Parts: sequence; C-alpha cells; structure tokens
Amino acid sequence: MISFESDYIAGAHPRLLQRLLETNLEPLSGYGSDPYCASAREKIRAACAAPEAEVLFLTGGTQTNALVLSALLRPWEGVVSAQTGHIATHEAGAIEHTGHKVLTLPQHLGKLEAAELARYVTDFYADGNHEHMVFPGMVYLSHPTESGTLYSLAELEEIARICRTHSMPLYVDGARLGYGLMSDETDVSLADLARLCDAFSIGGTKVGALCGEAVVFPRRTPEHLLTTVKLHGALLAKGRLLGVQFDELFTDELYFRISRHAIDCARKLKEILREKGCNFYLESPTNQQFLILENQKLAELQKEVAVSFWEKYDETHTVVRLATSWSTTEEDLERLRELL
Amino acid sequence: MISFESDYIAGAHPRLLQRLLETNLEPLSGYGSDPYCASAREKIRAACAAPEAEVLFLTGGTQTNALVLSALLRPWEGVVSAQTGHIATHEAGAIEHTGHKVLTLPQHLGKLEAAELARYVTDFYADGNHEHMVFPGMVYLSHPTESGTLYSLAELEEIARICRTHSMPLYVDGARLGYGLMSDETDVSLADLARLCDAFSIGGTKVGALCGEAVVFPRRTPEHLLTTVKLHGALLAKGRLLGVQFDELFTDELYFRISRHAIDCARKLKEILREKGCNFYLESPTNQQFLILENQKLAELQKEVAVSFWEKYDETHTVVRLATSWSTTEEDLERLRELL
Amino acid sequence: MISFESDYIAGAHPRLLQRLLETNLEPLSGYGSDPYCASAREKIRAACAAPEAEVLFLTGGTQTNALVLSALLRPWEGVVSAQTGHIATHEAGAIEHTGHKVLTLPQHLGKLEAAELARYVTDFYADGNHEHMVFPGMVYLSHPTESGTLYSLAELEEIARICRTHSMPLYVDGARLGYGLMSDETDVSLADLARLCDAFSIGGTKVGALCGEAVVFPRRTPEHLLTTVKLHGALLAKGRLLGVQFDELFTDELYFRISRHAIDCARKLKEILREKGCNFYLESPTNQQFLILENQKLAELQKEVAVSFWEKYDETHTVVRLATSWSTTEEDLERLRELL
Amino acid sequence: MISFESDYIAGAHPRLLQRLLETNLEPLSGYGSDPYCASAREKIRAACAAPEAEVLFLTGGTQTNALVLSALLRPWEGVVSAQTGHIATHEAGAIEHTGHKVLTLPQHLGKLEAAELARYVTDFYADGNHEHMVFPGMVYLSHPTESGTLYSLAELEEIARICRTHSMPLYVDGARLGYGLMSDETDVSLADLARLCDAFSIGGTKVGALCGEAVVFPRRTPEHLLTTVKLHGALLAKGRLLGVQFDELFTDELYFRISRHAIDCARKLKEILREKGCNFYLESPTNQQFLILENQKLAELQKEVAVSFWEKYDETHTVVRLATSWSTTEEDLERLRELL
Repeated sequence: MISFESDYIAGAHPRLLQRLLETNLEPLSGYGSDPYCASAREKIRAACAAPEAEVLFLTGGTQTNALVLSALLRPWEGVVSAQTGHIATHEAGAIEHTGHKVLTLPQHLGKLEAAELARYVTDFYADGNHEHMVFPGMVYLSHPTESGTLYSLAELEEIARICRTHSMPLYVDGARLGYGLMSDETDVSLADLARLCDAFSIGGTKVGALCGEAVVFPRRTPEHLLTTVKLHGALLAKGRLLGVQFDELFTDELYFRISRHAIDCARKLKEILREKGCNFYLESPTNQQFLILENQKLAELQKEVAVSFWEKYDETHTVVRLATSWSTTEEDLERLRELL
Repeated sequence: MISFESDYIAGAHPRLLQRLLETNLEPLSGYGSDPYCASAREKIRAACAAPEAEVLFLTGGTQTNALVLSALLRPWEGVVSAQTGHIATHEAGAIEHTGHKVLTLPQHLGKLEAAELARYVTDFYADGNHEHMVFPGMVYLSHPTESGTLYSLAELEEIARICRTHSMPLYVDGARLGYGLMSDETDVSLADLARLCDAFSIGGTKVGALCGEAVVFPRRTPEHLLTTVKLHGALLAKGRLLGVQFDELFTDELYFRISRHAIDCARKLKEILREKGCNFYLESPTNQQFLILENQKLAELQKEVAVSFWEKYDETHTVVRLATSWSTTEEDLERLRELL
Repeated sequence: MISFESDYIAGAHPRLLQRLLETNLEPLSGYGSDPYCASAREKIRAACAAPEAEVLFLTGGTQTNALVLSALLRPWEGVVSAQTGHIATHEAGAIEHTGHKVLTLPQHLGKLEAAELARYVTDFYADGNHEHMVFPGMVYLSHPTESGTLYSLAELEEIARICRTHSMPLYVDGARLGYGLMSDETDVSLADLARLCDAFSIGGTKVGALCGEAVVFPRRTPEHLLTTVKLHGALLAKGRLLGVQFDELFTDELYFRISRHAIDCARKLKEILREKGCNFYLESPTNQQFLILENQKLAELQKEVAVSFWEKYDETHTVVRLATSWSTTEEDLERLRELL
Repeated sequence: MISFESDYIAGAHPRLLQRLLETNLEPLSGYGSDPYCASAREKIRAACAAPEAEVLFLTGGTQTNALVLSALLRPWEGVVSAQTGHIATHEAGAIEHTGHKVLTLPQHLGKLEAAELARYVTDFYADGNHEHMVFPGMVYLSHPTESGTLYSLAELEEIARICRTHSMPLYVDGARLGYGLMSDETDVSLADLARLCDAFSIGGTKVGALCGEAVVFPRRTPEHLLTTVKLHGALLAKGRLLGVQFDELFTDELYFRISRHAIDCARKLKEILREKGCNFYLESPTNQQFLILENQKLAELQKEVAVSFWEKYDETHTVVRLATSWSTTEEDLERLRELL
C-alpha cells in the first residue's frame, strides 16, 4: 500500500526529530521564551527580509486562521474570502465561533479576483444600508489555494493595493506555502509576502513538521499577543516543540529544499498520470493534483493506493486528489506507475 | 545551573521520542483516526476501568479546559471553581471567551469545600432572583490543585454526590494527575475518577510528553465531538503526535512510574529543604513544594537554581515554588543540597 | 410630503396607545409577569390554535432572530437561509456574533426552494468531510420574504417535512406576518405556522405597535428562556409595554384588520402605479411594492414622496420600494396619484 | 394594595405618554434618525455641559451595560466592578456572554474603594504572570449603587484619576441616576460625570419612561456605533419611542423634578419607618430603603403592601427593599403609615 492521500501522512522530517532528540533534556523556560524560538524567529525574519517582523508559533492551521483573523478584525467586521476558502468551508465554523462573518466572493480556480474584490468593496460603501451590514474588514487568501493554484505577483500586488485603499489588512494562509514558493510557475517570494501582507502563515504541519504554523506580522503586531494566544487556548507550555522545529526548517534552507522535493515529485507524478492517460480536473502547479477517475477504476486503485476523495464529478466519475510532500519517495512514484 | 522552575522544563520522556522516531515514516491518516490513537484510547480505558469511555487527545491545558467546559455547559450556565482554580486566575479569560462565567467559591489550600458548594447551590435556587443570575452548571476541580494539594476519596465522593443531586457535571483538571495518583498520601485512583467524574483530563505535558492532554468522558460523550474540537481550532492534523505519546505513556505503566519518580524526588527535596531549615509555605504531598525565602537569600540562590516566583509574602520575603518531575535527577537534588 | 418609505414610519395604532394610557398608573410587576402579558399570551395561543405554546415578547426583529436562532442551535450548527434572508444580509452579523454561521442557498423571489434545501442537506451528510463543516442545524424563512413574496402552504409543508426528516427546527421570521396572512393570494394561516414551525415570530413593530415581536414556540420551549432573554440583554423591565400592546392587537382581531387595511391599500397602490404605466420589479402580493424608476423621474418624485432605495437597476434606472401599512390613508394614495 | 416593590411598577410619566400621542402619526424615519432623537441628544448634551458628546438611546439596562462594556473593552480585557455590581450578579452572565470577565473587588456599602482599586491594578502589573491573566481594561461603577448609596465627588475624582493613570475607561451605570443627582446628600452633578467618565448612562426606565437608557460618550465615541448597536440586536426600528421620551424628560428639567419628587417621598418614607421603629439595614440617601423585618411581621405586611425581597438576614428576619419613584403618591405613603 502506498499513500498519496495528503501532505501530512508522515511524521516529521528526520532532521527535525533529530534536533528534538538532541535538545530534549535541556531545561528551558516555557511559552515560547526559549532560545530555539528566538533563533527560529530571527531566521524567519531574515528569510522574509523583514527585520522588524513579529513571528508567532502556533500548532495548527484552523487555530492560526481563527486567532489571526479575530485579532485583526473589529467586532463589526467580517473577512472576505473566496467561497472555496478553507475558512469558508472546512473549518467547522471556527471563524464564526469568534463572532465574525466570512464574506464570500466567487472563486476562480480557488482564487479571489482583484476586480471582483474592488467592486464588492466599492458597492458595499455605496449601499445606503451598509451600516446594517457586515463591514469588509480584511481579506483572506490562501497561497497555494485549496485547488493547488497560485496567485501571480501582479495579482497579489493588485489585491494588496485594494486592501490598502480600503484599510483592510491582507492575510495569506500559507498552510502549504513552501509548495507555492518552490513551484516552477511562481514569481512570488517570501519577501514579497512580507512586503504585501499584514500577516501570513508559514505552514509547518504540511511541510516537514510534526505540527506547527509560523505566523508573520511584518509591520504592526497585534497588541498583547501572548495573552491573545493564551485566551484562545493556543499557547503551548513547551514552546520548544515549535521553536526547535522551525529553527531547523529555516537552517540551510531546509524548508525550501524539502518543498522543492515535493514539487519535483509532483512533476513526475503529473508525467506518470499523463502517460497513463488520466484526466486532470484542473491544472495545478503545486504539490496537489486533481484527477477525474471512473468510479470502478477508482475502487480498484484504492486497494493499493490511498488517495483523497475531493468531490463527485458525475454519476460515474469522481474527482480525487493525490498529494506529494517532503516525504514522497521515488519508490512511491514507481509503484504508482506500475499500478495504474 | 540547575532548574526546579516547573514540571515542563524538559522535552519528552526518551521512550516517547523513541516511539515517535520508530513510527515517523509510516503513512497514517489524520485527525486522530490512526491506529496509535486507537490503541492509546484502549489502554486508557483499561487503566480507568471504563470500557465505554470516550478518550480525546488535545494539545494543551487551557485548550482542554475551555473546550470541555464549553462543551458541557449550556448558555445560561457557569462553572463553579475555587477562587484559585487555574480557570479562574491564569487562563487569560479563556472560559469567559467561550461565553461562560467562572463562579468562584473560597479555596482551602487550593480546594473547594463540599459543604460550601452545597450551601452555594442551595442558596442559589432559594434566591428569588436566581433567574437573573448565572446558573451553577458544572463543577471544576483540579487534582492536584494549584497548591499541590489533593482531594481525599471521601471529599471527591461528597462533591460528586452534590453534583449529581443538582445535575451538575463534575470535571477534574488533571494537568498534573500522575503526580496526584502516585502521591503517598492519596486514596484516589484513576478508576475512582472515572466513576465519580463526568469528564477529567490526564495531563501529558507535565508528565513526560512533548505536549498533550487526554480527556476522558467515562459515560456520556458530548455530541459531535470531532466537529467541536475543530471549531475550537484544537484538532491536530497529525493526531499521531498525541496518539503515539499516550500509547507509550500507558504501556507498561510508564505514566505511573515516571510520576512516582517525581514523587520520590519531591520527598528527597523536602528532606533537603527541611535539613536546611527552610520554611514551607504549605504542606504539599505532590511534586510542587512552596517555600518562604528571605529576598536576599532568594536572589543568591537564583544565580544557581531556577525556581518559580509564586507570590510576595511580606516586604522582606517571597513565596517560591520548586517542582520535581519525571526529568528530575539525583544530581539535581545533590547539587541543590550543596547550594543551599 | 407623503411617505411610503416603510411600514414603520408611524407610531402605534391609536387603540394601543389608548390602552397604554388607560393602564399607565397601575402598579405591575416586571419582566413579563404582569396580567397583560398573560392575557396577550392566552389570546395568541388561541389565535394560533396552539394551547400549549410558549409566547415570548421581545422588542425588535434582529434581537428576536439572534435570540431564537442561538437558543435553538447547538455550537456546531448553522442556520440555513436564502441568500437574501434578513439574517444573511441586513443584521450586521448579529447571528455570527452569537457564534453561528448562516448557510446560504439561492433565493427564488426571496424564497428558499424545498428541492434545493433537500439536496443541500443530503449532499452535506454524503460529503466525506462533513465533520469538518458547519452542520445545517435549522432552517430560517421569512414570510413575507424580503421581496414581499409568500410561501404557499404546499411549499411550507414540504420544507417542514424536510426539516423533520433531518431534525432541523424550522423558524419563520414573521416581522411582517400580518401582511402575509391577510394577502389575497395566501393559503397559509397562523394555525398552519403553529403546526409546521418549531418557532415563529409575529411582528408588531411593522404592524401597529410602537415596538415588539411575539415569538411563538408551539411545542417545545427552550429551557430557561427568561434567563436566556436576560443574558441577551433583551429582557424589558416594564414587560407591560409589550404585553398591553399585543393584548390589544389580539383583541377583536385588530392585528388582522389593520393588516388587511394595508393589503387593501397595496391593491389600490398597484392600480395607481399600473394606471400610471410604472414598471414593477417583481410581483408582490403583500404590502411592499417594488418599482423600476428612471433616475430623473425618481429624483422629481422624491421631492414630494418618500420611498425607499432598494437597489441600482442599471445606469439610468433604480429599484425603489413603496410600502403601505396600517397607517396608510386614502389621502396618501390620492395624493400619490396626483403626483405621478 | 399599595406597592413599594420597585421604581418600575408604573408606566410612563403622563407628559411622556402625551408627547407620544401628539407625535404618533407623524411619518418619521427610523433607527434614531428622527428629529426627536436629535433634539433629545442636544438637550442631554446641554444638561451635561458636554457639547461634543455622542448620545445613544437603548431600551434596557443590561443591554446598555453589555453593549457599552464590550464596545470599550479589547478581547484580552475584563471590567473591574464591586462584587455586588449589577453586572457581577444580576445580569445572567450578559457580560461574559460577550466574552469578557468581570473582575470583582470587595464592596463597601455597594461601592468600590479607590485605594483598593489602585492596589489591585498595581499588583496586577507587578505580577510576573500577568500576561496569563485578564487585564483590567475598564472600571464599572453604579451611581446610585445597588444598595442605594452614592459616591462623593472626591471619590469619583480619585477613581477617575486612577483610571486615567492606567488607561482604563471609566463607565458609570446610571440606571437610577436621577435619584442620585437629586439626593440631598450628593455633590455630584451631570456635568461632573461628563467630565470624569468615558461613558455613562442616564436611566429612563426607572425614572419616568416606558423604557429607555441614554448613553453618553462625552469625548471619544466608539467607532461604527450604529452597526455595533445593530449587531447586538439593540437597534429599535422606531427610534422615536426613545427620542420622544428623552426629549420630554429633558424639557423643563422634568427628569430632575420627577427624580426630586421620589427623593422627597423617600425622606417621608424614612420618617414613617423610623416613627414606626423599623430597623434600617443600611443608610441610603436615595430612593431605595432597606429594612430588616421580622418574618411574621413581613408576611402580614405583604398582604397589603408589595415590597421586594432583598436577602435573608437570619433565621427569623429578612431584609426587604422599599422603593419610591416618580409615581409614588402621598396617598401611598399615608396608607403605609396606617398599615405599619
């Protein structure tokens, strides 16, 4: 049995576990005040070319989104998202649980369109009843998106410009950020995100860590951030668990190199799938590939290969997702080639 | 430099790290659906003599308290706690953040007194205005308490009886549960907790794990628990991180043996402190010891020994806490003896 | 200047003010425990043919929706609404403020379609990821809708059937209920609503009262309702203000007769508008009429007649709303005829 | 039967009802945008000597407290209150429902003591763990207090000074403000409150209105206040109901004159009670008087006179409250004298 089910099927990259082992018995103070957290913060600031940034370590993606959004929104504001955004669909209402509405716009291959965003905000303020409505208080993007697609630098610049015009912070959910940054088809860098966003996350859980997301606030840090993290139940006593891992991920560009590995594997995966005549549901330049499979064929495949159900395509076909990751091996790919 | 600062100064017990290493590259499904979580649940049920119990793994203590309390409370209810309870003092308002009041009663060495609880609830329902007040919806205890003290089985039985009489679920915060169960001065077992509580936590973070609390619902499981965990931002993608650790903690009684080690160390610590003529602030039968130190003496000691500030005693004295744990060594204790 | 701006431009029906005057100096107990509230409840139960119903008086529509929805929803649930539902658009996020998502479906002249609702719920439970999503916990309709349209009895029966199948309470927002019940084109009665809904409101604010909505729970009353009302800040000290008004509205069928008056006025209004060659935006059988007006024509009209902006139609036309109500007079209508 | 049960046993002062009647059929725009609201705001600004103040009209006291506190608090902050403060005891958890903790200090005849407040805040910031605790974000006083007592101007000045030092807004709950301002024993004026507070309420419900509280923000208005009111479900469609009443209350000093009437009645009430040898529970200079009555005597009295249960005094005695108000008559007082 081989698995392309997700990019979080394995534990941690061995170098991270090794560092956890090496530092395990050092007595360290808690709640993110240890030297490994400090070092990781410094390395991330450097990688982002954002020397003034605040960097916060949290354990999971939904926790990160709910905490950052509620820290940046005022009570009368909601967050604008593509209708397929993770916060709009697969976080069990975690954003609404903090009291805020997710304001959805149409998605285009998983992306918000700048022109539609501009029109939405302009129309909002032109509406005579807008004081009875939820104000668009910030903008949420994911990069890569849920569909594995990427914003171009020009698209991000334009969205950031609209955000600045209307004083809406821009937040990028980077749960799979490494796989976006290392795509062959991107012109967006970490420094670009730090320049354009008010906050963004650098996903660890899907890119080599046991758990962990780093949140970067390039310019303005929300007030009393540690207390905010605590009151969300998101403050780890042993902050070292996140500090040691991110410190290692940002040593010798490990984060980027293992992300690049996943992209290389995804390229080979696409070749294999094309070679076998598979139908792609959409064109993804990152580590997630979406196929339309005939249901019986899928049932057979699943005896040997774990894949993810994405959605029903029609009565006889299903869309499935295959994901590569830092842990994908040549053997996995070869075995898949044989099985198809 | 040696440290008695807290019971979470070290990483994980080496056997837990070893198991994380051994299982690291196995492809596993996420969100707690892997076989290690299943096995850990089964072992915990056995240890609790509660074959029907639901067992949930979360990452931290405040997260656990906020999630369990809000899952068991109805909107018009609050939770009764000693005024020194962790939820009442050191969780940054995480319980109120979920919309619920913490109803405080006096503390007696960190404990709620059954008779005061009974009187409080009786008086509440006798008050002609009680429909304008927050209903006592459940009871929160910690065991050991914030002061390192323990409830006797008779005390727990009596509190549980009052809870049943008034249909208030009883929850025990067991962030340091191992150190309570292995105390020489307790008559309370895991099975007693499972018999008397509606929910209780078995702390991992302070007892050998990198992170993790197991929550046990011995009888009735809150509905849609996975979705509840998700909407609190508390669902780990790689549930294995918690499953593998708790599975190992409950193999060969590791949890109990490392807790016993901390208790043995605490006994030696007390001997050393008594031998050196230290003043104890209160008598604790568990792993936390509280001393009254003259301020200048404290300043000197802190050059070599990390301890925790607890509270100001008077103008010239301070209460400090020294904690042992699974990671305390004979060498730490001997070094302390020399330094005092 | 005459006004068709809304159905809440005048104060209270004179008979209500008269009763407030007559009862003004009677010393009465507070919080809805006075005999006028009791009498009003009894009359509403009779009008609904629901002798066991609980009847609750609140001051406003958004307050009513937020309180009832949050009382009936569990934390993991959201409420299904047409995308044009008042709760989805014009309540400033009051529902999300209580922690719940509004799950929107397409609207058809302001209405939810039963078949789409059934498909949505079925698809939800068939989705392998639904535990990561917000559960459809209840259904919200408004009757009349925001567009002045009405559900047929057959439509309501079908929606209620789907709700029962999936254990979703059905709530009808009746802010303008009188104008729906007295329409020439309805086959729905108060007793039908009591039979089919789990909760519905009978709007007073737009139908003759200074303020006030009566909420009817025909079968099961939410627990601790008075405390729930109090914690929402919705409990009036002088409950008599609402009790006296609803008691009078449900005396000698005043509620129905003044609603019928508004419908008669709306029929005459439509005749006048048709006679003048106006373009209707949609066909409404209730007290709200929607016109497409050329912008210059609109500007001129507004010098003499207050109407409501509804939405931009195109570059040169606007949709406006004209509402009749219990307070509309023959003179208002004749004056409008002259002005058009 | 006569009633001293509360100060909200009657409807509205006849002049208010008269004005509602006179203005009843005028077509007015909604949501507080009508000329009566504008005029009332202007008169209140004048009465407060606060020409820049924002004035907001709400329907009830708990609604007012919850809305104002949550508008002024940040997520990590709680509100400091005497342990007997209305928000701490009799609002069913409405403040916690908005996510904020009520931080209680001892009460002294219902009042906060400035020195204790200063010490509390100083100790908070001196506590090494304060980032894990709820920050004191503002201060809540009621004036008169729950016990009918009053702050002196010197006490208010001192509390306001502490608030400014620690950047904590000061809010005064004036549900019975008129009865405080007109007491013989006060040196506090409306202008003093406007000078010292960041927000305060002027209660109408207990001082002559059918319902209504005016909230004054003397300097800085919270952003997007109308939307905030809407999302709390507190925005009345017919804002005129509140505007007309407050406009009349602040015409010819009606608010002050009817408050003075209640104080005069309270003085006579005290004389009668003293003459009859009643035991006072505490000394109140306002409209609420608290007696200790022998239980059998109380039972007899209640056959003829409605009074309020306050609390159990001992096994054979009860504390009861008698309240005068704008609607108390000489006849009520004479009848009471006969009955005692």
